[in-house]
Amino acid sequence: MTGGFAAASAVRRVGETTWVGEIAPGWDIGGNADGGYVLAIAARAAADAAQRPDPVTITAHYLSPGRPGPVSIEANVVRRGRRFATVQALLSSADGPVLAILGSFAALGGYEGPERVEADPPQLPPPGDCVLLEPTATFPPPFMGRVELRLHPGDLGPAGAGGPPRVRGWFRFPAGEPVDPLGLLVAVDAFPPTVLRTDVPAAWVPTLELTAHIRARPELGWLRCTFATRFITGGFLEEDGEVWDSAGRLVAQSRQLALMPRG
Amino acid sequence: MTGGFAAASAVRRVGETTWVGEIAPGWDIGGNADGGYVLAIAARAAADAAQRPDPVTITAHYLSPGRPGPVSIEANVVRRGRRFATVQALLSSADGPVLAILGSFAALGGYEGPERVEADPPQLPPPGDCVLLEPTATFPPPFMGRVELRLHPGDLGPAGAGGPPRVRGWFRFPAGEPVDPLGLLVAVDAFPPTVLRTDVPAAWVPTLELTAHIRARPELGWLRCTFATRFITGGFLEEDGEVWDSAGRLVAQSRQLALMPRG
Repeated sequence: MTGGFAAASAVRRVGETTWVGEIAPGWDIGGNADGGYVLAIAARAAADAAQRPDPVTITAHYLSPGRPGPVSIEANVVRRGRRFATVQALLSSADGPVLAILGSFAALGGYEGPERVEADPPQLPPPGDCVLLEPTATFPPPFMGRVELRLHPGDLGPAGAGGPPRVRGWFRFPAGEPVDPLGLLVAVDAFPPTVLRTDVPAAWVPTLELTAHIRARPELGWLRCTFATRFITGGFLEEDGEVWDSAGRLVAQSRQLALMPRG
Repeated sequence: MTGGFAAASAVRRVGETTWVGEIAPGWDIGGNADGGYVLAIAARAAADAAQRPDPVTITAHYLSPGRPGPVSIEANVVRRGRRFATVQALLSSADGPVLAILGSFAALGGYEGPERVEADPPQLPPPGDCVLLEPTATFPPPFMGRVELRLHPGDLGPAGAGGPPRVRGWFRFPAGEPVDPLGLLVAVDAFPPTVLRTDVPAAWVPTLELTAHIRARPELGWLRCTFATRFITGGFLEEDGEVWDSAGRLVAQSRQLALMPRG
């Protein structure tokens, strides 16, 4: 499939509550499609059902790995209010359900009111001084050819004991494709897992659930991203993300719950 | 209705995918039932559908206020795996849908593996030195008679500029009723909103969405809770919570997205 994110996440309505799309090749990490990308396909169908463009808050539960090929999405509006419409949806492949989502959609913007922000965007060297992850057949995975990630050079090795392990970096789509609110769903799940920077042995930490809050439509340009993990306990770990746009505005917050390998 | 949390959140299966229950009187804040309590009713039906006791990760989208009276829950298992079962559910009253949930259920415990924790439980004076919120007809609301909250005396007034506004305190159910994982869903939504400690004018901030991760079954005794808000932007604010048990273990993490009044 040629084209960028918008083409690779396109859906088409084929029934009252049914959409079809495709998990495109090349969006995978070790054969499994990136979770944020598959979420974006489902969210695009759900936004169409909602007749609202932006996933203000959306949660995905991952049921099985996404493989390249056709998918269908069943999306049901459970409430349509003046401002928000809430949608339950299920994305399935020929092999069965891949992910379930619950989201509330609206048109972002137009708010004029008091704000209070307790954090700054992450401090990053300019993109040219950060580390470009280029796709290879093995590692980094093919997915890295669909997005452009530049990692903070200080976040490549093992994290020390002085605070939570972090992964920070720049994100954009290649070829100047803008990142819209659906594209932010890719950004929040695109970076290498923070747990890889700890001494906790975990080569692969499958995501059980991901929730993203989209606060604003991003301005054009590079996005600054930061991810951290504070609690690896009970066989689970959370990864909290923030995405800031080129105007220095928080555009997304995310949290995912991932599974540690069972002993 | 007499009895504590377990009785007030009881459900009964009446069909293949249908449960009934009741929003009990006295669990409200200004006439609207506490969001964590209504979530617990829906979660109890979903856990029964899942045939798994614990909501490892559960998200609720609030569609309309919950009023005392009968409710029904439609719950559908979208995938039943070896360990997790994922359930979509919708709780409705006679007036229409009240909340939609998506949750993955399992039996917590039994994990033996590496852990890494980057935070301590909140430092609190002993419960007897904290401020008991006692229910009144107006403020604090009747809900405060269904739970026992003791607030950190330092968290009562306006928060200064030195960091995010926090609300910390102790939580338990009255009369020695244990807090199980479903009870934790009440704990994460029981405290006064952090935004009330800021100079951002917001008498009431309706919750759009709440996600809770339950990490472990709590030990008996008081729970230590802490809530903080870092970003009030674009008409939204998040509130992040942590709940720790009497053994000093993180038992729940929560994040909710609430709406600022529109200007």
